[in-house]
Amino acid sequence: MDKEDTSTQSQTDVLIIGAGPSGLMAAYWMARYGVDARIIDNRDTKVFLGHADGLRARTLELFDSMGFQHRVIQEGSISTEANIWVPGPQGNIIRQAQIDIFRVDESPFHNTRLNQGRIERFILDSIREHSDLDVERSVIADSLEYDEELSNDPNSYPITVKVRVLGEDDSNPPCGQEIENGSEAADNVLNRSNLLPDDWADLAPRKKPRKTQVETIKAKYLIGCDGAHSWTRKQLDIPVEGSNTDHIWGVIDVIPLSDFPDIRRVSVVNNAAGTILVIPRERGLVRFYVPVQTCEAGATERFDRSKITLELIRARMQAILAPFTFDFKECSWWTVYQVGQRIAAQSTKDNRIFLAGDAVHTHSPKMGLGMNMSMQDGFNVGWKIALAVAGTLKPEVLETYASERHPLAEMLLDFDRHWSPIFTDRKPGAKASDMALIAGRFEDFADGWKVFYPASSLVRKAEDNAEFAFARHMIPGERVRPVKLRNHADGGTQWTTRVLESDGRFRILVLAGDIRNPMQRQRLETLTRGLAGQSGSNISPLSRYLEIPGRFKSPVDVLTIHTSPWKEVEFFDFPEILRPFDPVKGWAYDKIWCDDACMFDRYCDGTAYEKWGVDRVLGALVIVRPDQYIGWVGELGDVEELTQHLDGILVKKSATGEFDQAL
Amino acid sequence: MDKEDTSTQSQTDVLIIGAGPSGLMAAYWMARYGVDARIIDNRDTKVFLGHADGLRARTLELFDSMGFQHRVIQEGSISTEANIWVPGPQGNIIRQAQIDIFRVDESPFHNTRLNQGRIERFILDSIREHSDLDVERSVIADSLEYDEELSNDPNSYPITVKVRVLGEDDSNPPCGQEIENGSEAADNVLNRSNLLPDDWADLAPRKKPRKTQVETIKAKYLIGCDGAHSWTRKQLDIPVEGSNTDHIWGVIDVIPLSDFPDIRRVSVVNNAAGTILVIPRERGLVRFYVPVQTCEAGATERFDRSKITLELIRARMQAILAPFTFDFKECSWWTVYQVGQRIAAQSTKDNRIFLAGDAVHTHSPKMGLGMNMSMQDGFNVGWKIALAVAGTLKPEVLETYASERHPLAEMLLDFDRHWSPIFTDRKPGAKASDMALIAGRFEDFADGWKVFYPASSLVRKAEDNAEFAFARHMIPGERVRPVKLRNHADGGTQWTTRVLESDGRFRILVLAGDIRNPMQRQRLETLTRGLAGQSGSNISPLSRYLEIPGRFKSPVDVLTIHTSPWKEVEFFDFPEILRPFDPVKGWAYDKIWCDDACMFDRYCDGTAYEKWGVDRVLGALVIVRPDQYIGWVGELGDVEELTQHLDGILVKKSATGEFDQAL
Repeated sequence: MDKEDTSTQSQTDVLIIGAGPSGLMAAYWMARYGVDARIIDNRDTKVFLGHADGLRARTLELFDSMGFQHRVIQEGSISTEANIWVPGPQGNIIRQAQIDIFRVDESPFHNTRLNQGRIERFILDSIREHSDLDVERSVIADSLEYDEELSNDPNSYPITVKVRVLGEDDSNPPCGQEIENGSEAADNVLNRSNLLPDDWADLAPRKKPRKTQVETIKAKYLIGCDGAHSWTRKQLDIPVEGSNTDHIWGVIDVIPLSDFPDIRRVSVVNNAAGTILVIPRERGLVRFYVPVQTCEAGATERFDRSKITLELIRARMQAILAPFTFDFKECSWWTVYQVGQRIAAQSTKDNRIFLAGDAVHTHSPKMGLGMNMSMQDGFNVGWKIALAVAGTLKPEVLETYASERHPLAEMLLDFDRHWSPIFTDRKPGAKASDMALIAGRFEDFADGWKVFYPASSLVRKAEDNAEFAFARHMIPGERVRPVKLRNHADGGTQWTTRVLESDGRFRILVLAGDIRNPMQRQRLETLTRGLAGQSGSNISPLSRYLEIPGRFKSPVDVLTIHTSPWKEVEFFDFPEILRPFDPVKGWAYDKIWCDDACMFDRYCDGTAYEKWGVDRVLGALVIVRPDQYIGWVGELGDVEELTQHLDGILVKKSATGEFDQAL
Repeated sequence: MDKEDTSTQSQTDVLIIGAGPSGLMAAYWMARYGVDARIIDNRDTKVFLGHADGLRARTLELFDSMGFQHRVIQEGSISTEANIWVPGPQGNIIRQAQIDIFRVDESPFHNTRLNQGRIERFILDSIREHSDLDVERSVIADSLEYDEELSNDPNSYPITVKVRVLGEDDSNPPCGQEIENGSEAADNVLNRSNLLPDDWADLAPRKKPRKTQVETIKAKYLIGCDGAHSWTRKQLDIPVEGSNTDHIWGVIDVIPLSDFPDIRRVSVVNNAAGTILVIPRERGLVRFYVPVQTCEAGATERFDRSKITLELIRARMQAILAPFTFDFKECSWWTVYQVGQRIAAQSTKDNRIFLAGDAVHTHSPKMGLGMNMSMQDGFNVGWKIALAVAGTLKPEVLETYASERHPLAEMLLDFDRHWSPIFTDRKPGAKASDMALIAGRFEDFADGWKVFYPASSLVRKAEDNAEFAFARHMIPGERVRPVKLRNHADGGTQWTTRVLESDGRFRILVLAGDIRNPMQRQRLETLTRGLAGQSGSNISPLSRYLEIPGRFKSPVDVLTIHTSPWKEVEFFDFPEILRPFDPVKGWAYDKIWCDDACMFDRYCDGTAYEKWGVDRVLGALVIVRPDQYIGWVGELGDVEELTQHLDGILVKKSATGEFDQAL
């Protein structure tokens, strides 16, 4: 009876379990698309210290499209090289090599370290800016039912999750979300002095109900972002392949007291006593990965973590860094973990329930890839589900989550298996060449430049995956390489990562070439008649598809980037459909951009077309997906092919005839 | 009896009246130095929309030193050129000139537009990060008493201010702080949708007491930042010189609906119907300054502002921009003002009470200088008072507030008198040359590159104000020209504007030159013995002065900037005093910087020494004040002269002998 009183029923379009980085990235899209969604987490508060800290440049590109990369850059610590230390001739250790780990001009951003708690803060702030969606904390999922028979009806609620909202008297069970396949031993005291003010309000747990409340939530879609020990995955009986390795590592975030010269530079230090990884962090912190124990080879049982203390880790550090000194008084966070290399057999159930992040893949954290991969999972599945729920995306496109992300999870584990021996192989020496070799093979993947998304409804590849001659470096399935452009109307400069804002729309990039050329001007006008639906087929890809309700009249936006010198053409020289007029907001001044060098900005150097492999006179036509990956590339006149591509993705308005019929 | 019940007495070291930009800048220093201070404001809330919007690059340099320039850049709109439009041959208007208004490489930042409300937000957040100081709103100052006899005792409380804390039933009197000598007519509805989330909490007025409360506050120092109609200034009977001009202007912040080509570029449009100024802003807004009425020449009475409506301003805009179209549906803020050019006769009373910002100078807002000058006033007076209250600064240094800032207020009015006729002269044409002329004459001043601070205890000028041969472009009394350096320990790059953080300390810049050179290495070691007090005079300028209580053991910090190639020297190659060890924080990795080109950052190009006019081998020695102005320049060995300079500013520890005696 008492229980009945506090039991409620409700429904939501999307339920997200787990408010770590991957769950928050998915929630970001719910906020941007204005979708009815909920996100629950069993912890009382967000993360504040420790946990993941590695941000790849590609992740900062995503953050820029979400509007907060500047906060990461302000607070984070960048890494531009890796140093290798090996035993020297006199029982000392010596710097064997300094390896550049950045590539000039590939991205505006660099590998950066900043703790997960700050990243959660920034995504939470961004969600708040766009909706009332908020994380419901201290909420435990108890049971999951899934009705397969409803799976083909996109308007049905095949998912039923019972949750408990913990009351004042409940003690929270151990945290289910961890950065990797290990367990935690953080014993820090959190207080205002070690947090930034914008986190203070989250320091105190939310007000809980007096008694535990039970709620039954029916949902159209469920995203399980609940970590390595994913409750969602277990409910679905999805098997996990792989195993724990036999290596136990400690991780400490400390203010080091040391005369080791490279303590503020990424370094691998290897000697007979073992191999450690040195990762400088924000606010004077340095993270160290320290081997603390080796299990019996092949042992599958969990190690006895109670034996691993902070003092033991300190002593191991001292042994490996000797003869350099090492100690610390301030430890912000530490933990011990057993490296597990595991991958879930599937990352979806019928494209109604999805797994993302550590729920799919766990591996060694040392390369700083885990949080990035997890956030990109959440980013990938989030926009697709939200746009499907909005009614704008064809539900079958949801299949691309698994086809795009699962191979990357496998690649990640492959990478990890190649990389890990560097840290566990006790034989000193030859590390620099190993690192360079692996860096060379996996660089594009690790940095996130290449994701290898395969052909699908979202990605139209050239035959034999060849490049397209008219846009040689615009590879469908890969990201748009960031360049800095000049806004035609106001003359200010912006990186494309920000111009291609993650607002939920597909974008047609009209690479207009040089419009001073009369022939090209003609081609541009032909194109714009096509975009306006005034050409032979009478179909405008801009007004053909269902709106994003409450957000955008069309899920397709147009951006023009031309190569005429900035001072030689005017904003109003461009056809009106490329800079449309809104009766309240006026002309769309943010739609016309110029690839011209700019005196006051060294990064705006007029090389966008070169970097994209596009002819400066002739231009090209590109479709960019809402997540900034390239979907389709064509010549400037290919409006019909462009529309055909979008027809495979987006739901047409009922009044719009089939494309095939119109032809 | 009722009144007595709610009347209290209290004392504070510093009372700031007015929480606009100048008051908040002063309050920033109270927070950084940990000084006992209060800041009151008669308004119920902060500013949200409209008001001042122009930020000069120099102001962004200050913001960088305070830690939030990245937020301004993310949100603001930059201006890099100015366009002049004049009547054309067929009754139309034509673009006569495009004038570059930025100087390449002079600053990392550009002239930027962002509304005052956001700037207040950022300073408030920064204050919160460093202290519990918060603005007390809805508080009205009623009376001021000043006891001159106490003026020479720095520990006395010569100031008595009675304030009323408004209760729930009080209606707030009209706002006393305005951007200039005009009055406001904003009639916008504020709500969440037109504000950013971090301002939402300030949208609702604070909880007020039920009844009005009266408080008597005794203070050591008072700063009146209470605007053009300064209550503080009136209490002191300080006369104001100057007068209203005969020109009435409207200001509107709107989303324009117009086919005028330069509506998103700073423009002056001049035709027979009048002259308007076009200032593009953040979030699609454009500000227009529009002449609406001319009083009788010399008329001193206030104009009848009730006659000026938004519709009248719209019609004037349409007349002046014709034949281009102009209209708007969204107006975020508007006001009408009469240009007043006025300056207070004094900006201090006995160096115990100070006036800052509009309380000292009012002028035309069109050049976007007012908020900058006001903030720099607050910044200048703030650190001095706070450091004097802390007991570290000699009280007589407070005289430099008036000697440094008052001449600039006069220069500002001079500038305004030269500039204003461009907007009020009805004769079309010749505007471009006028603008170029004035830009040339006042550019350094307007942009804030040059402040012309005269010789004083804080500024040691060369004879005849000549340059110093060993640091030709390091001019005492001017700012440190920003350059980008590479941190020696971690390899990351930073602008000096951020490295020279406004944390309250004086900084000795050890421009160490190239330490690979054995002779130079010798000179550096001699210098560091001097800094350590191990040379002839036995005086260490680093341990000689009183601490900043609760903040820093020494008010003098040391930063080293060398020219050896980054990869060829090590952090530990530098003498220990330049990278001191702290038992908890370890070695000071943030103290050694390198002027070397850096492959991954185009702005870190190894030209700092060239820009500063310093020999790359021999280096120099520089004292930078807490506000980043250069105080003193010397050769690398001049420790005794350096110490003599600091002796004129800072209070020595009682155990430290007089410098003259020690010699």
